Parts: sequence; structure tokens; C-alpha cells
Amino acid sequence: MSTHENQRVAVVMGSASDLGTMRKAADILESFGVVHDVIVSSAHRTPDETFAFAASAAEKYAVIIAGAGGAAHLAGVIAAKTTLPVIGVPIKSDALNGLDSLLSTVQMPGGVPVATMAIGDAGAKNAALFAVAILALEDAELTQKLKAYRAAQAKRVMESQPES
Amino acid sequence: MSTHENQRVAVVMGSASDLGTMRKAADILESFGVVHDVIVSSAHRTPDETFAFAASAAEKYAVIIAGAGGAAHLAGVIAAKTTLPVIGVPIKSDALNGLDSLLSTVQMPGGVPVATMAIGDAGAKNAALFAVAILALEDAELTQKLKAYRAAQAKRVMESQPES
Amino acid sequence: MSTHENQRVAVVMGSASDLGTMRKAADILESFGVVHDVIVSSAHRTPDETFAFAASAAEKYAVIIAGAGGAAHLAGVIAAKTTLPVIGVPIKSDALNGLDSLLSTVQMPGGVPVATMAIGDAGAKNAALFAVAILALEDAELTQKLKAYRAAQAKRVMESQPES
Amino acid sequence: MSTHENQRVAVVMGSASDLGTMRKAADILESFGVVHDVIVSSAHRTPDETFAFAASAAEKYAVIIAGAGGAAHLAGVIAAKTTLPVIGVPIKSDALNGLDSLLSTVQMPGGVPVATMAIGDAGAKNAALFAVAILALEDAELTQKLKAYRAAQAKRVMESQPES
Amino acid sequence: MSTHENQRVAVVMGSASDLGTMRKAADILESFGVVHDVIVSSAHRTPDETFAFAASAAEKYAVIIAGAGGAAHLAGVIAAKTTLPVIGVPIKSDALNGLDSLLSTVQMPGGVPVATMAIGDAGAKNAALFAVAILALEDAELTQKLKAYRAAQAKRVMESQPES
Amino acid sequence: MSTHENQRVAVVMGSASDLGTMRKAADILESFGVVHDVIVSSAHRTPDETFAFAASAAEKYAVIIAGAGGAAHLAGVIAAKTTLPVIGVPIKSDALNGLDSLLSTVQMPGGVPVATMAIGDAGAKNAALFAVAILALEDAELTQKLKAYRAAQAKRVMESQPES
Amino acid sequence: MSTHENQRVAVVMGSASDLGTMRKAADILESFGVVHDVIVSSAHRTPDETFAFAASAAEKYAVIIAGAGGAAHLAGVIAAKTTLPVIGVPIKSDALNGLDSLLSTVQMPGGVPVATMAIGDAGAKNAALFAVAILALEDAELTQKLKAYRAAQAKRVMESQPES
Amino acid sequence: MSTHENQRVAVVMGSASDLGTMRKAADILESFGVVHDVIVSSAHRTPDETFAFAASAAEKYAVIIAGAGGAAHLAGVIAAKTTLPVIGVPIKSDALNGLDSLLSTVQMPGGVPVATMAIGDAGAKNAALFAVAILALEDAELTQKLKAYRAAQAKRVMESQPES
Repeated sequence: MSTHENQRVAVVMGSASDLGTMRKAADILESFGVVHDVIVSSAHRTPDETFAFAASAAEKYAVIIAGAGGAAHLAGVIAAKTTLPVIGVPIKSDALNGLDSLLSTVQMPGGVPVATMAIGDAGAKNAALFAVAILALEDAELTQKLKAYRAAQAKRVMESQPES
Repeated sequence: MSTHENQRVAVVMGSASDLGTMRKAADILESFGVVHDVIVSSAHRTPDETFAFAASAAEKYAVIIAGAGGAAHLAGVIAAKTTLPVIGVPIKSDALNGLDSLLSTVQMPGGVPVATMAIGDAGAKNAALFAVAILALEDAELTQKLKAYRAAQAKRVMESQPES
Repeated sequence: MSTHENQRVAVVMGSASDLGTMRKAADILESFGVVHDVIVSSAHRTPDETFAFAASAAEKYAVIIAGAGGAAHLAGVIAAKTTLPVIGVPIKSDALNGLDSLLSTVQMPGGVPVATMAIGDAGAKNAALFAVAILALEDAELTQKLKAYRAAQAKRVMESQPES
Repeated sequence: MSTHENQRVAVVMGSASDLGTMRKAADILESFGVVHDVIVSSAHRTPDETFAFAASAAEKYAVIIAGAGGAAHLAGVIAAKTTLPVIGVPIKSDALNGLDSLLSTVQMPGGVPVATMAIGDAGAKNAALFAVAILALEDAELTQKLKAYRAAQAKRVMESQPES
Repeated sequence: MSTHENQRVAVVMGSASDLGTMRKAADILESFGVVHDVIVSSAHRTPDETFAFAASAAEKYAVIIAGAGGAAHLAGVIAAKTTLPVIGVPIKSDALNGLDSLLSTVQMPGGVPVATMAIGDAGAKNAALFAVAILALEDAELTQKLKAYRAAQAKRVMESQPES
Repeated sequence: MSTHENQRVAVVMGSASDLGTMRKAADILESFGVVHDVIVSSAHRTPDETFAFAASAAEKYAVIIAGAGGAAHLAGVIAAKTTLPVIGVPIKSDALNGLDSLLSTVQMPGGVPVATMAIGDAGAKNAALFAVAILALEDAELTQKLKAYRAAQAKRVMESQPES
Repeated sequence: MSTHENQRVAVVMGSASDLGTMRKAADILESFGVVHDVIVSSAHRTPDETFAFAASAAEKYAVIIAGAGGAAHLAGVIAAKTTLPVIGVPIKSDALNGLDSLLSTVQMPGGVPVATMAIGDAGAKNAALFAVAILALEDAELTQKLKAYRAAQAKRVMESQPES
Repeated sequence: MSTHENQRVAVVMGSASDLGTMRKAADILESFGVVHDVIVSSAHRTPDETFAFAASAAEKYAVIIAGAGGAAHLAGVIAAKTTLPVIGVPIKSDALNGLDSLLSTVQMPGGVPVATMAIGDAGAKNAALFAVAILALEDAELTQKLKAYRAAQAKRVMESQPES
């Protein structure tokens, strides 16, 4: 399978316990042949590593996907240290079901954007699809793969009609 | 001023009354020299035009910014008809202050991503900065402009210290 | 059983996974002898089919019931393409329990109404009862059936008194 | 102007202070030539009158629009006493901005539907448009008027493009 | 056990499915020797019976406890037809966990009060204790029982210290 | 005007700034001839006075109305120290519009009830009406006044019909 | 293990049922060698004991951690009677998942602060860490322990990388 | 006036526009004679300065107060880089009134605490009072000042009784 080596994507999460959700992003990237790294790095518990990662991310990555829950600062902290596109995934949290994660991720102040996806698994999957959409702007093959993905998806919906 | 003609961005909104907010996006694009069109097209009131716009957007645009309020379907409807990156801006609504706009924009099902920004003016501004960040992946000059923008922004913060 | 052939109702849902809820609507229509079709069509994953369905719905249907979850655009997108009465059912979602589905369905802008029911099974059931109420305006037999339904329902409540 | 005398619509509200919002419904009905009455009747302060109104509404009306705020019981109480289609309009409330009105109106139990519209003016306007859509099922002239309304609305949107 | 015959309390609920919660109220009344009836009557499905009950409640009862879920209109509808004290219990609902029940019960308009308790079992229990507090105003024996109840409750808390 | 001296009601509030709302309660009590005291006492800023007030309230009062905003602990703290009926009024707060006040007042644990009214002025008014309803249980004159109040209120609604 | 005897911390909770959460605080204090007592005392069910505890807490304790759920008044009531630092832990509640507990704890009026932590177990753990941070201001050994705790925590995150 | 030089407090905010709220904290510290610095430093716009400030804060400060709005990451980012007590003030935001600021500040993951105060001015004031309470643990004079502050506050409440 041909890969898109110069379009590496980082999939970062604040805790190894977020892996169940964030693997949905990695799986999509894998299926599109987009090279990616999966990294656990916490804005609060490993701030130096997160800071260093973000500061040098542009040397290695084109797009960063960051997932965190609760007071989800990870995507925002990374976005503060890079001008790369940062996509945020609000992880479903225990008490507030991810409403806290969503607001902490999406309500960024003017000047430092985080592109926020839906709470949980659907959001992780879409973060990867959005990263592919960005990379596809300069990669006709990826664009074709995206269109095929959409077509297959539509076909599955149309074939799922209930029996009459 | 040199422009980035082949990286045209569409700034779409569901109603002319959203222009107060969405102009913040256009202003940022203007300041970065990114060519853009500002279009009013409603998912509900002009569905054919919106559909046609989205279906052919890839011929003209690289990135789409879509702002809408209330049951904000515009970004999702456009994203359904294109594989371009679509950035959603939840417009502050009258009764629920944009919480409805936010949830309607961000909670997309797996398969069709919308990159959602903060509610209101900050979100519109960040949508444009995020579009610039995408375009900058293949445009070193834009990357430099983004870095300069960040530096100027940081400088303004540091100079805003209250008098002791 | 006599049926009401010229008063066909469409029960549309965004995903086959919504069938558990939307079948509550179909069951009510069945029990009233109202002819209906159950269709899976997604505003986001099969936009062309959804658009085409809505554009021609008036040729075949009198009322449309549309159920979707999360950023629930289905009912609004259909309502944008038809002047038939469209009844929306917010499907209970994973993270936000259907609050997102409710706001995405009900907060339609002035000009394109969606008649929204309660979140989940009760809403699906009521969507069908509301469709029957519309059809009953020109069908005395249906009106009688509705009154009998209400009477039987009241009787069940009155007979459910706890033992003293 | 020809009117639709046998398709009378009742526009009921819980308080005269709701008239600012509910007049939006009456204005739409007026513009479509649909005969209607505007009535103040409270589920809580004039329960007998509300009950009596609902019990005999089918003698005079085809559709009922009911608007109320806060613990908005009006639409539900009317729906309990008639099998006519009842459309609920959540009035924007003081403290909670209509979230209470919305949930009190829409979350009806299975068995007694209320077709709920958006909070506030847009909801009142759409309630009338939805009533027209119901009446139009048996009135080709109304259907044409609705289509013309939609076309004019689309035209206004398309003409509202910002100057480039 | 001596009872308080002239201080009968009605425990009403909108559905037999609310009995699990509302039995907490009946149990408290039972333990205080307060005579009470447990009644299923729905504001929406048996409006006539609910209306008739409320209109004549003062002949038989001193206080009414009413529990309902979702668009919980029961307490408000009863309060509209009696000047007796009506205590509302918001039943925990499926999708919104009782937030809808709470707002529908508590946000009554000025003029017709409903004394609202917490969502669910604690609220049902407290509704009964509040009814007892009302009855105790003219019943020294009940006052003593209430004080003993509070003292026993405090004792249980103090005895529940974790082992050191 | 005859008064109901042995049925004194305390209207307590956490801050003098709550007086605008709580005066609505005092006005109703005044109009019913119910003797009452208006007291500022804070659960947090004057805990000793609040505690002492609650501990001896039964010597002087029959019913207590307590209004507070934000983390509204006043009604709960008073209810903890008396077995009198305590009615809570959530004052509309600055940031969260009284949602915090409502939840802090109504979500009392099983064992110590607070009868909660709507947020703000309507709640204050209803708190007084509910106190009157309690006192009316042993006061036929008050019952008549309440019925007259309701009748006058209904008359005002019926007379507020918009001009046709 | 050397302990910090003159820096005793009280861990108070409103109900023995909160022990599952609050033990997370005690465990952290234990691991840092901070002497502490675990106490069940309810603002509502044992107000006298809670009041007395708070009034004399400064004689024995340096910091108080208080956890409660629903209308969580415990931390606020204690803070009203002491000038010691009071740290509040909102316990996850049944119906509203701790949103009520959070708002009841954090929205204190100006003049009486409660330092609020996250809802549930993470909040209990952090309450203890914050108490340690306070005590560490005058205890270099505790500061070193905190730094070691942070370092170990960072190490665990860095070692939790998913296998590639 | 004697000051507490070795107990310096930092009052940090994410934007100069937060000064209206955060000055409430500075004013309290001033009135207690606690030396403090007021600093504008943004987690997102000046991450390096914020990081550097937090990393070396323990050399100069004993307690840090951090206020921010929206996706309020400032307090959490600072807390990640210091073991000093960090007190968070959620600034009232435009669209969501500070609910986003509150959840972003308070819902910190286990391991890195932020002591969160109420939204807005009351929170800023209480942040300073809480900082004083911490410093007072080792400063008998500050403790006396705090007690005097509380006594004066109680006196003002008691003197604010409405005229009878």
C-alpha cells in the first residue's frame, strides 16, 4: 500500500484511558494509508513533554489530532505552541458526559483556533477524516480515497433499509 | 500585496443577519491576503442553491467556512456534499445564546466531519485563522504570516499589563 | 382492515440504528391502518437520496416523520425541500442523551417549520399519533379511531391503580 | 381575498404578555388568508375556560396553536382534551430564556402529542406555517401559496448577498 | 396506632410506572400515621378524572402530593383547580434525567404555586415530610413525631462514622 | 382589616439586594392580611443569626419563606434547624440566571424538605400564596380570600383578550 | 514515616454513602503522611454537630475538605463558621450527575470562599493534593513529596505509550 | 501599614479585558495588606511567558490566582508547572455566561488541582479571601484581619434590615 509519508499525523491524548476512543482516529488514518503516531501526553501531568512536542511538531507532522476529557486543555495548549492545524476531540467524561470536554475544547479565544469534533468515538473518527480532508487538498489520490469512502458509506446506508 | 489565488476560501452564512459575526472571518482572510468570497446561502430557505454550491465547491475553493445559528444545519449540509474541509461557526442565537448552534454544528455523526469553532465572533475569527493554517501547509509565505500574527498577538498581550 | 391508501406516511431515519426507536412510530401507524413506508436515509451520508426523496415526497406521501440523533439535520433538510408537514423525532444520543438531537431538530429558523416531538420512544410514538391527527382532519373514521385510542388509553390508566 | 373559512385556526396563549410573540403566528395566518381567532386562556389561571375551549375546539377549529412560557402546560392541557393537531410554541422566559418552556412543551408522554416549534418569534411564525401546511393537504390553493411563500423567501435570501 | 383522619393526604402520580418513586412518599406518610390515598391519574391521558379529582379534592384532602415526569404537568394542573397546598415531585425521566420534570413542575407562573421537591426518590420522601410539616402546624403529636424523626435521623448520621 | 396574628410568616433573604424580588412575597402576604416580618439574614455571612433565627422560629412563626441566589443555602440551612414548613425562592443570579439558585434550593437530600418555587419574582409571589394556602387549611376566611384571589385573577385573564 | 502532626486535615462528608468518593482524599493524605480525620456530618441532618465542628475546627485542623452531593451545602456552611481554608468536593449525584452538587458548592457569594474541585473521585483526590499544597508552603519536606508525586505521575504517563 | 512581604500573591489573567473582574481580587489583597502583582499572561496567546512564569513562580509567590474565560486553560496550565496552590476564577463569558469558563477551570483531572471560585466578580473577591486564608495559617495578624473582615461583613448584613 502506498503511503503518504510526508503528511504524517500525530494522534495525541491526555491519558492512556482515552485510547479506546482515540484508536478510532488511528484506525481511519490507517485505512487511508496516512502515516501517524499515537502519543500519550498530558497538558497537566506532563506539561514539559506536551510543550516540547507542540513546539517541534511542525518538523515532523502536518496535522495534530488531540483528544482529552473533563477540563480538556490538551488541544488548546498544543495549538498555542504551533501554527499547524490542531483538531480537538472531546472525550466523554464521567460526570458530565463530555459537555465539559466539549466546552473546554471548542470555546477557544480569538487568535488560537482548535477545530473541534463531536464528543467521543464519532468525533475521533471524524477528526481523522478531517485530517485526511486537509491532506487531500494536495494529494489527488487521497481525494479519490475520500470520495470512495463517502460512496461506500452511502451504499451501506442505502443497503440498510428495514425489511418491509 | 501578493495573494494566494489558488487557495480561495468561501465564507458562507445562513442569513445576511449573520454578517456581523462572519465579517470577522472575512477580515482575517483579507489581512492574510487570502482570496475569499462571502456568500449568503441557507440550508433551509435556499436548499437548492446551498446544495449546488457545495456540490461544485471543490472546483473553486480549497476550504469552506460556514456559519449558522439555532438549528444550524448549514455546515453539516455542505460537508455532506463535498470532501473539502468544512469549518463551522456557531452563531450566537437569541434564546439559547448559541448552545443550540454549537450542538447542531459540532455533534456530527461519524463519517462527515465539521471542524467547529467557538460560538460567535471569536469563532468566526478562528475559523479564518484555521483556514489559513490549512493553506499554510503548502505555502511557506502564509506560514510566516501566521507566525508573525502570533508574535504580534503575543506582543499585544505582554504590552497590556496594568499599571502598577 | 380498511386502510387509508391516499394518506401514506413516510417514516424516515438517519441510520438503521435508529430503528429501535422509530419502529414505535411504524407500529402506531400500523395499528391505525395508515399505510406507511419505513426508509433509512441520512442527511449527511446519503444527501442526494435524502434530497431526492424530499423533493418528490408530495407525490406519494401526505406527512413525513423524520428521526435522527446528535446534530440531527434530517427533519430540517427534508422540510427545506417540501411543503408537506414534517414531524421530527430527536433520537436519544450517546453523550448528551438527546439534548443535542432535540435542539438540532426544534430550533428551526422562521420560514421552515419542523414539528418536534419528545426525545426517544415516546416522541416516535407521538409523531405517529400526530400524523394520524393530521390525516383524521379529512377522515372521520380515523377521528373515531383516535378517540377510541384515547379512551382505551384512559381506561388503562384508570385500571392501573395500586392496590390499597 | 378568498379565505379558507372551514379551516379555522385557534391561536391561544397563556397570557396577554405573550401577544408580542404570538402575533407573529396570527400575521402569517392573515397573510395566507387563513381565518383564525386569537385567544388568551391560561392552563393555570383559567383552567375551566381552557378545558372548555379544548373540549369543544373540534366544532370550530381544524388546528390549534398554543403558546406559553415557563412551566408551559397550555399546549399539553389542550392536547389532552382534543384529538385535533395541537402545535406548541415555547415562549422565551425571563430566567431560563425559554429552555423551561421548551422542555415543558415538547417532552410530552407517549399518547398525547404536541408538535413543538422553536422558542420565541421564529417558533410562532413556524407554528402558523405548519398549520398552513396541514390545511394545505386538502387545499391546492394553499399549497400554491406555500410554494410561493417559500420561493419569495428564497429570493430574499439570494438577494441579500453582501456587496463585494 | 392513632391516626390523623381529618388530615388526609392524596399521593397522585401520572403513571403506574411512577409508583417505585412515589411509594417513598406513601411509606413516610404511613410511618407518621397520616391517612393517605395513592392514586394514578394523568394530566394528559385522563384529564377529566384529574380535573374532577382536583376540583373536589378539598372535600376529602388537606394536602396533595403529585409526581410526574417529562413534561410534568400533573401538579400544575391540579394546583390550577384547588387552593389546597400542592406539592410536586419531579420524576426522573429517561432522556433528560428529570431536568425536564423539574423545570415543568417548578417554573409555575405567578398566581398558582406548586411546592417543588428534589428529583426522584429523595423528593418523594421529602414531599411526604413536607406534608407532615404542614399538618403538624395544628397537631402537636405530629410535631413531636417530626422532631423524633429528625432526632433519629441525626443519630443515624452520627453513628455512621467510618472506622478509624 | 382583620389579621391572622397567630399565623405569622417570616420572609427571610440572604442579602438586602434580594429585596426587589422578595418584596413580591411580602406584598401578597400584606394583601391577604397575613402578619409577616421581613428579615435579612445570610447563611454564609451571618450564620449565627440565621441559626438562632431558625432554632427559635417555631415560637413566633408558622411558615418561613427564604430567598437566596447562587449557592443558595439559606432555605436548606433554616430547614435543617426547624420542623416548620420552609418555602424556598431561588433568586435570579448574575451569571447563571438562577439555575444555580434553583438547584441549590430544590435538590435537598431526603429527610429535610424545602418547598421550592420558580426562579425570581413569580417564585416570590407564589411562595406567599403557598404560605397562605397552608394557613388557610385552618382559616376559612383565608380560604375564601384565596378563592376570591383566584377568581379575580381568572377574570383579569379573560378580560385581557386582544381586540379582534 | 514522619508525619505532619500540627497540620491536621479534616475530611468531612454529608453522608456515609459519600465515603466511596471521599476515601480518595484520605488515601492521598495518608500517602503524604498528613494526619487527618474522616468525619460524617450533615449540614441538613446534623446541623448542630456540623456547626459545632466548624466553629472549633481551627483548634485542631489547618485545612478542611468537605464533600456533599445534590443541594451540597456542607462546604459552604462550614466555611461560614471558620476562616480556615475550606475545600469543597461536589459528589456525583443520582439525577443530575453532580451538576447540582457543583453549582451548590462553587457559586458562593462574595465574602465566604469555598475552593471547589472537580465532581467526584478526581475532585476528592485533588482536594487532598490541594490541602497538601497549602501545608507544603511551610513544610519543605512536603514540597519535596509533592514534587516527587508530580514526577512519578509524569513518569507513569510517559510510560503508558501505546505499542506501535 | 505593615505588609506580609514574604507572602506575595500573583493575580494573573488571560486578557487585559478580564481586569474589571480580577481587580476585585487585587482590591481585597490590598485591603489586607498582602503584597501582590497583577499580571496579564495568556495560556494561548503567550504560552512561553505563562509557562516561564509558572515554572519560576515558587521563587517569588506563595499563592497564585488565575482568571480566564471561555475555554479557560490558564489556571490549569499554571497548576501543571508549579506545586504552589493555584486558585481559579472563571470569568463570565459572552455566549455561555461563564458556564464554559467554570467547567474548563474546575473539571481538572486527578493529580493537578485548581481551587475554583464562583463565576465573575464574587469569585475574584473570594479568590483573594481564600489566598488570605491560606497565608493566615502562619500569620496570626492576618487571621485577626480575616476575623475582623467577617465580623464587619456580618454587621453590614444585620444593619441592612428593611424598614418595617
